[in-house]
Parts: sequence; C-alpha cells; structure tokens
Amino acid sequence: MEKGKLLYEGKAKKIFETEDSSVLWIEYLDQATALNGARKDEIQGKGLLNNQISSFIFKQLKAMGVESHFIKKISKTEQLVNSLQIVPLEVVIRNVAAGSFSKRLDVKEGTLIDFPILEFYYKEDRLDDPFINEDHMKFLELATEDEIKEIKKVALIVNEALIELFKAIDITLVDFKIEFGRYIDGRILLGDEISPDTCRLWDSKTNQSLDKDIYRKNLGDMVSVYQEVLDRLEQLEK
Amino acid sequence: MEKGKLLYEGKAKKIFETEDSSVLWIEYLDQATALNGARKDEIQGKGLLNNQISSFIFKQLKAMGVESHFIKKISKTEQLVNSLQIVPLEVVIRNVAAGSFSKRLDVKEGTLIDFPILEFYYKEDRLDDPFINEDHMKFLELATEDEIKEIKKVALIVNEALIELFKAIDITLVDFKIEFGRYIDGRILLGDEISPDTCRLWDSKTNQSLDKDIYRKNLGDMVSVYQEVLDRLEQLEK
Repeated sequence: MEKGKLLYEGKAKKIFETEDSSVLWIEYLDQATALNGARKDEIQGKGLLNNQISSFIFKQLKAMGVESHFIKKISKTEQLVNSLQIVPLEVVIRNVAAGSFSKRLDVKEGTLIDFPILEFYYKEDRLDDPFINEDHMKFLELATEDEIKEIKKVALIVNEALIELFKAIDITLVDFKIEFGRYIDGRILLGDEISPDTCRLWDSKTNQSLDKDIYRKNLGDMVSVYQEVLDRLEQLEK
Repeated sequence: MEKGKLLYEGKAKKIFETEDSSVLWIEYLDQATALNGARKDEIQGKGLLNNQISSFIFKQLKAMGVESHFIKKISKTEQLVNSLQIVPLEVVIRNVAAGSFSKRLDVKEGTLIDFPILEFYYKEDRLDDPFINEDHMKFLELATEDEIKEIKKVALIVNEALIELFKAIDITLVDFKIEFGRYIDGRILLGDEISPDTCRLWDSKTNQSLDKDIYRKNLGDMVSVYQEVLDRLEQLEK
C-alpha cells in the first residue's frame, strides 16, 4: 500500500488517501492543541505514543467484539484505517464527574456517576462543537434514528470494554470521546482514535491525570505520562 | 381567601401564601429582566397584561383538556394557583428556529422546524440554567423517568393547543418555555405562566415580534405589544 495525496490535516493527525479508495493512511502528529485549536504546541514523541496506544486499544476492542475502522499499524506514527463517511457527532461517555460536566452542573470533580452518562456534541469547529440533544440531531439530519440507536449501543459497549481494560492496569476511565462513521457496507463503525487525547484517565490509586489534562492544565510533561499509559497497556500482552 | 406571607419574589412575580397551604397567591409585577436578571427595568402595566394573558391561556388550555396549577384570576394583577412542588426544569419547545437555537446551531431565524423540538434546561440561576439532556436529569434526580415521560407528553399537547390558539389570531408560536410541578395528589401539573414573557410570538403576516424580544432587543414599546396580544386573545371570546 502506498501513501497518496493528503486529504485532510486535523489537530493531531494527517489523513492521506491510498491506491485503495476504501483505505486511508493516518499519520499521528507531534502536536497538541487546546481551546478548540486556539492553543497549539509541538510535543516531540506524542504522535508515536498516540498511534501506539490507539492501535493497541482498537486491537483489544476487536478481540472483545467491537469492530472499528482500524486495519493495522504500519509504522511508529502511522496506521491504515477503513475510510468511513463521517457522522458529525462527538459522543462523550462519562463515568466520573470531571471537566465541563463538573463545571456546567456544579458536580464535584471525582464524583462517581452510577450509570454511564452519554452526551452528543455537533462536530462543527465553526460553532465550537455545541452540545446537542437527540431532537437537534434529528433536525440537523446528522444521523438516522437507527444509526443513533446503534451509536448509543456501541458507545456503551465500548465504555464497558474500556473500563475493564483500564481497570486491569490501575487506571480509572473517567470519560472519553469517540466518533463514528458509515462503512461502505452501510454499517456504523467506530472511527477516529482512542488515546489519552480523547480519554480522561486517572491513576486508580492517586487520581493523578494520565491524559491530555496534563497539557490543558499545564501539569507537567505530557510525553512521559502518555508513555506511562502505553507501558501499562503493554503489560497486558505479557 | 386572604393574602399571607411573601414566600418568594421572582423576576416578574411575587408569590404569597394563603390560609390554605395548598393554594398560593401570585402577584404579577411591572418588571422586566433580561440576561438572567443582569438587566432589570420597571415596565408600567406589564404585570396586569401578563396576569390577564396567562390567566386567559390557562383557562383556554383547561377547556382543551390540559390541567394546570391555575385556579382563578382575583384582580388585575393577581391570581390564585395550586401550590406545586417545583420540578427544576425549564422545558422549551421550538416550532420555528430563533434565539439561542439559531445562534448555537447556525440555523437561520425563521426556519420552520418540521417537528416540535424539545429542550430541557436545569432551572438553577447560579449556573445560568444550563441546557441538559435526559441522562443529566436522571443523574441530578430532577424528576423520575415516569415524570419526564409525562412532562414530554404534556409539553407536546400544550404545544399543539397553543399553536392552534395563536393561529386563530394570526400569531405564529415560534417557541416557548413551560415549567411543571408535582401536585399534592402526585400528578405532574403545568405551572408558572404562559405569556409573551415566556413565548416567542410572531405576527403571522409581518413576522414582527409580539413578545419579550421587544425588550431583549430594544425594539420598541413592550406594553403596547403585550396589549396587542391580549386584545387578539380576547377576540376569541367574542
């Protein structure tokens, strides 16, 4: 497979076409952004770590029965994925109160939520990805009712799988964001990435952040923390 | 029935107890606020108009089969209502795009929505009444699942009834906010008020605002516009 034309450059990834129109070539960048891109920094080694972590997690999810767009890792910073028609939704699942949830509803950070809370955001940078409800999704025609049902079902399964995966390496899955798309056969598949950029991960013993909050809140060295997550995940293979 | 102790002073109403603990005495004030109370003005005659309009609408809704807390109008600015245990939700229904909906989702004001969109806001001044979804309601224990089901059902019925009522007097019901509470017998009842303070009403022919947007956007004399709404409503009785 050969890397073709650059199709899109996102905040942390470049997406290239390949000679197979159904397959995309993803390059993870050494880049971190916050505040919807207003803050941007080069972070040496981050692309490599997120590619490894995301590849690892997608492989684990597959073994647990959850399909995604992931095909295979092809270099330290690159992977091949199936091309999906994007569903412009950011799906957030919360198990513990933190971040915007804590602020907007005045719920103390760290409060356990006794069932997974689902939130949908309309993926539209221009509008700052507004929080929406299912009526808005229907009005904006972001997905069909069946697709929304499927997305909710898969999101909850992914949550259960990830909780278990991270629990085994003493990490609490506080919340995370996933995205979905339509595969050529019409199925809704998990897309994008799953990494410390898209998950809020806390060390189970110390509640210390092992995720992008290190960058958002200037808490220290992002790369060593992402490395810690990768190291722990790799223990699972031993 | 006698007016007792002041229980609560809201942005546009005072609420007094009566000798019957299940009945409240509401006084509509000559006061308008915007920006969650940050802007506040005395508007002579507004209390009288909202009391008349809201009383009229609650009576009409009752005739159309929708119960509310409304008992009767007892003076130009006062009414008696059944005391409800408040459900801290603002329920918004939208038939035409306007206001925050248009801004947040970039939908042109005046765009027809082909089904009524429901939105829930957590009624909490301190947090600026944040927009929430049903998982948030469940987590915050704002209402039981059965109550939410009932609130949604009644909200849609109220919408149909109000659309019809206003259509007969050449007014488009763009959107509106209602509130609910628990009556002593456990039933969920419509509460608060329904007036140009809580509805977005447009003249069907000119699309001119006949509601609080006159005040929010400094478009002219609020009282003459509210009077116009009352005059048209009273034509229905002739």
